[in-house]
Amino acid sequence: MTPVEVNDGRLSDRMAALARVGRDPRGGVSRLAYGDADREARALVSAWMREAGLAVSVDAAGNIVGRREGADPAVPPLLCGSHVDSVPNGGDFDGPLGTLAAIEAAHTLLERGAAMRHPIEVVVWSNEEGGLCGSRAVSGQLPAFELNNVAAGGMTIADGIRAIGGDPGRIEQARRAPGSIAGYLELHIEQGRILEDAGVDIGVVLGIVAIHQWEVTISGETNHSGTTPMAQRHDALLAAAGFVELVHRVVTGEPGAQVGTVGRLEASPGAPNAIAGRVVCSLELRDLDAAVIGRLFRRIEAGARGIGDATATAFAFAPVMATVPAPSDPRLRRAIAEAARALGCTTRDLPSGAGHDAQCLAPLGPIGMIFVPSVGGVSHSPAEWSTPEAVRNGANVLLNALLAADRLLP
Amino acid sequence: MTPVEVNDGRLSDRMAALARVGRDPRGGVSRLAYGDADREARALVSAWMREAGLAVSVDAAGNIVGRREGADPAVPPLLCGSHVDSVPNGGDFDGPLGTLAAIEAAHTLLERGAAMRHPIEVVVWSNEEGGLCGSRAVSGQLPAFELNNVAAGGMTIADGIRAIGGDPGRIEQARRAPGSIAGYLELHIEQGRILEDAGVDIGVVLGIVAIHQWEVTISGETNHSGTTPMAQRHDALLAAAGFVELVHRVVTGEPGAQVGTVGRLEASPGAPNAIAGRVVCSLELRDLDAAVIGRLFRRIEAGARGIGDATATAFAFAPVMATVPAPSDPRLRRAIAEAARALGCTTRDLPSGAGHDAQCLAPLGPIGMIFVPSVGGVSHSPAEWSTPEAVRNGANVLLNALLAADRLLP
Repeated sequence: MTPVEVNDGRLSDRMAALARVGRDPRGGVSRLAYGDADREARALVSAWMREAGLAVSVDAAGNIVGRREGADPAVPPLLCGSHVDSVPNGGDFDGPLGTLAAIEAAHTLLERGAAMRHPIEVVVWSNEEGGLCGSRAVSGQLPAFELNNVAAGGMTIADGIRAIGGDPGRIEQARRAPGSIAGYLELHIEQGRILEDAGVDIGVVLGIVAIHQWEVTISGETNHSGTTPMAQRHDALLAAAGFVELVHRVVTGEPGAQVGTVGRLEASPGAPNAIAGRVVCSLELRDLDAAVIGRLFRRIEAGARGIGDATATAFAFAPVMATVPAPSDPRLRRAIAEAARALGCTTRDLPSGAGHDAQCLAPLGPIGMIFVPSVGGVSHSPAEWSTPEAVRNGANVLLNALLAADRLLP
Repeated sequence: MTPVEVNDGRLSDRMAALARVGRDPRGGVSRLAYGDADREARALVSAWMREAGLAVSVDAAGNIVGRREGADPAVPPLLCGSHVDSVPNGGDFDGPLGTLAAIEAAHTLLERGAAMRHPIEVVVWSNEEGGLCGSRAVSGQLPAFELNNVAAGGMTIADGIRAIGGDPGRIEQARRAPGSIAGYLELHIEQGRILEDAGVDIGVVLGIVAIHQWEVTISGETNHSGTTPMAQRHDALLAAAGFVELVHRVVTGEPGAQVGTVGRLEASPGAPNAIAGRVVCSLELRDLDAAVIGRLFRRIEAGARGIGDATATAFAFAPVMATVPAPSDPRLRRAIAEAARALGCTTRDLPSGAGHDAQCLAPLGPIGMIFVPSVGGVSHSPAEWSTPEAVRNGANVLLNALLAADRLLP
């Protein structure tokens, strides 16, 4: 089929207009969830949603839902969207691209008078950066106690949800049942530089990886650096060094896109003239396949035992978090790849190593995600940037993938 | 010659009495330099010095000097001593053993009517734990600006020196010229467990090691742990891990008593889901021979360049401190070893990896140090302990080495 195209001038104007909301004098944008700038951005995109012919409401979790009915009243809606809240001093693309491209797709469909079989719902998920709050509420993954947590902007999540028009006391009403959506599509910047390095236009996301984190405690013996011969030491930092290298060796020791990171490491007592008696560090493993994570972890654990024996120290692992992988739907992946091809864009399959609202929709129905290149792989920074071509490509692929999904999904 | 012996009942009674001064309810003793407990301890040992027939005075740096004239008015004095100040929650032996054994040796000589050729001076060095203040002042190594530094007890060093009867405005008067002492002997606990592990009674100290420290900065690139493939990382913590292992490998790669330590390590930003972009860590090398330290450092520097290349990071080394080694005098080492043998004690030569007042005396004349075993190598802790036999052995070796030094030193 001949691909349709969005009005990319309108899209880029709106990207620019949204980027002015919450502009931070220290750089980038600061639209912390629930705050003034977030609310201003939500009002702005709500207006654009109405221009796109969508009936706008806010659910109990504070998600903005813009809906247009489809031709078949018996089928569930097709969802697409992203978010408009940001990290402090964040960039102009993480969230806004997927949000405005979804509105633009709806607007284009309206203007073309295109008949869709499914109802379409453009969703702006609330408080994505604070831990996917809005999308987790929709899939029943937001435990009630979290409503009392204080969000980055300073108010509790409950107060924040109230401030954006939701109803935290009835948050269960935002929940959707498995099977109640025909599918979900999200366009996002890659936030890495796999696509840029490969010179590829469009990433077809295989899924959102599982993330497992542990806190690792290495116990040795603090002692005087001058009076303790090398052979008599129980140096927890030497053991930790072996551990960091072990993690790298195990994770890179087999083919695949898995990643493993030790990002936090604290050595005690932390003096130049004292042998470290204790190290606490993080271990994080990510992969699309939880079985891969399990296998890597068992190798790391076994290797750590060997390091402990060799350095006269002891390792202890405490699990901190474990998310489940959210694979994308093969039909939607095909739809995305075919839309890209029809538009003359090159594609590459890749996992999403970062979390996205889409992962919370996976238990409710088929999901698909489209990535466009991030220049230099930079994100969560004022330097976050994707080219105008990438923005146009992404929006056009989203529009055509939506049309394909409308045809192929039940 | 038949060895003479101290009154070890009196010595152990005094060790016990001194250990009650500054007893800390949280454990051990806290006799921070210049504070009430330090002053009480100084008054107590001054009284014992007078009982031992010594003429007691306090020099401008707050060192207590107890002197007995010798038979030959033309020769400089033989010094021996240690300190009575402690770290917070310190032990009963670090300082008190050498101080009270020196007083006991003088007392024994008085009681035996032993004629010494040299004047003898028992010295209680002020503020040893705060950085060898008293002994550095005596050798002209205490820069004037340090007088304004705040000592552990809360007062400035200048105020502290005043509080213990010194005169910081005239601190130069405490200075002694090279050649103005016949020699210096100090008994101390080992603070390590080389002697204990070897089952040896007496350590003949080869000298006090040189200490060189660097601050090492490793620059990589902070990035998202989920979206940055392993091959695209510039992981400063992975580089640091290689560095810590490199230091251990280089330092243990040749025979000798040299030690090398990375004790402090800070990784930034320090989050489980962020690749560390920057690590700052310490490097410390200690050896009796500064040339060994230089050679090890050059190997470490070269190895770090290789790690930087392999991990796409950069290493920078900034020197922090470099002390000179203070070798002991071979005649005094022999005198110590022979005294030990005559007393039926086994000996072993070893360097002192920790700093001691003796190192400040080395520029002024020949020094000798005697170590006795520390149980478990523990020091600077309430658990610091040396057996009554070790205390007696150490004091007897000190006494007989003093007698030998009186004969053999000019």
